[in-house]
Amino acid sequence: MRIAELSQTTGVPVPTIKYYLREGLLPAGELTSPNQARYDDRHVQRLRLVRVLLDIGRLPIATIRDLLTELDRPDPDVHEVLGRALPATVGTRETSDPAMLAAAHERVRSLIKERGWLLSDNARTRQSAAEVVAAFQQVGADVEHLLEQYADLAEQIAVHDLRFVAQAGGNEGKLHAAVVGSILGDSLLAALRRMAQEHESAKMFGIRDDSC
Amino acid sequence: MRIAELSQTTGVPVPTIKYYLREGLLPAGELTSPNQARYDDRHVQRLRLVRVLLDIGRLPIATIRDLLTELDRPDPDVHEVLGRALPATVGTRETSDPAMLAAAHERVRSLIKERGWLLSDNARTRQSAAEVVAAFQQVGADVEHLLEQYADLAEQIAVHDLRFVAQAGGNEGKLHAAVVGSILGDSLLAALRRMAQEHESAKMFGIRDDSC
Repeated sequence: MRIAELSQTTGVPVPTIKYYLREGLLPAGELTSPNQARYDDRHVQRLRLVRVLLDIGRLPIATIRDLLTELDRPDPDVHEVLGRALPATVGTRETSDPAMLAAAHERVRSLIKERGWLLSDNARTRQSAAEVVAAFQQVGADVEHLLEQYADLAEQIAVHDLRFVAQAGGNEGKLHAAVVGSILGDSLLAALRRMAQEHESAKMFGIRDDSC
Repeated sequence: MRIAELSQTTGVPVPTIKYYLREGLLPAGELTSPNQARYDDRHVQRLRLVRVLLDIGRLPIATIRDLLTELDRPDPDVHEVLGRALPATVGTRETSDPAMLAAAHERVRSLIKERGWLLSDNARTRQSAAEVVAAFQQVGADVEHLLEQYADLAEQIAVHDLRFVAQAGGNEGKLHAAVVGSILGDSLLAALRRMAQEHESAKMFGIRDDSC
């Protein structure tokens, strides 16, 4: 298909597609003449993936490019993608108090040890976790209970996530599922959490009727 | 304290503090002369909160302003804050296929009904959930299992979250805890989920040694 049809199929405007091509988020089409290229279903799928990572994941262009590079490696390794590329998608913070951050790193280290989590030397997820723990402390909130409770639940979530990855066909399918499940999973969990919070809040604090 | 001391205490540069003052993220100090103002501990706390919402929550300025307006209402209602201001913090997507989005809305409606969740008419969390469900489908992923599993876990997370809110003192403290817990909670959960995923992935796919 030509770029106009690719645009029509995906709902992404042609100038935006050209921007993604320039930024390396979409592989070039097959040249059929010096200024015309042909695109196929793989471009449709890649374009949809890019949109999801941008709109739902709100990931920076550079992070998406890194993820897609992992996806396109000749002999991709599912564990590598989960362990190396995806940690970058967790928000980070650089303004924490150094002493608080050091204490938070120590807390995260002991959490990992207690739980026997097998983690690579890649420090990014640990860094993210420590930054969030430090941020709780910086605003005067005691995170200790939440940390253990969330870690319990994160273990259960991860089991579901890896099943979601495992049931996809082929290495490429598994990688796609890993990226989609991780990024969209964060948003799905956040949206469901907000609804469940509102329900719990209604039970705990009651609904105040401001209309009368 | 003067603005220079406020900057020193919080590590936030003076021009940034002035920007937050102009944007209404920080209440004005008490004027001690026509061009000098005095700030207190409330400014320190508010400034730390703003930084956390910006850096970890990655929230837009306008959303933070709305949240802070809720916090500063004379008779704040914890349930209202959770139900009205916080949903805006979940990423949204506007490019979904309309038919897919309509089907996703129907799926979210039935989920809420089955679970007996008490939700206000505020449509934002439902909209977010439907958009994420539609996004899964748009990239060809079957979200059905994850949706039910995540909903189970979201209910457990929300119980912990509301306990975290309830144990804070006073209405103001509860509101602060609701905002901090919701925003930082998303990031904490995401960071722990990534670590737990890596652990599960190591168990499931094994660790490939590329060094030899």
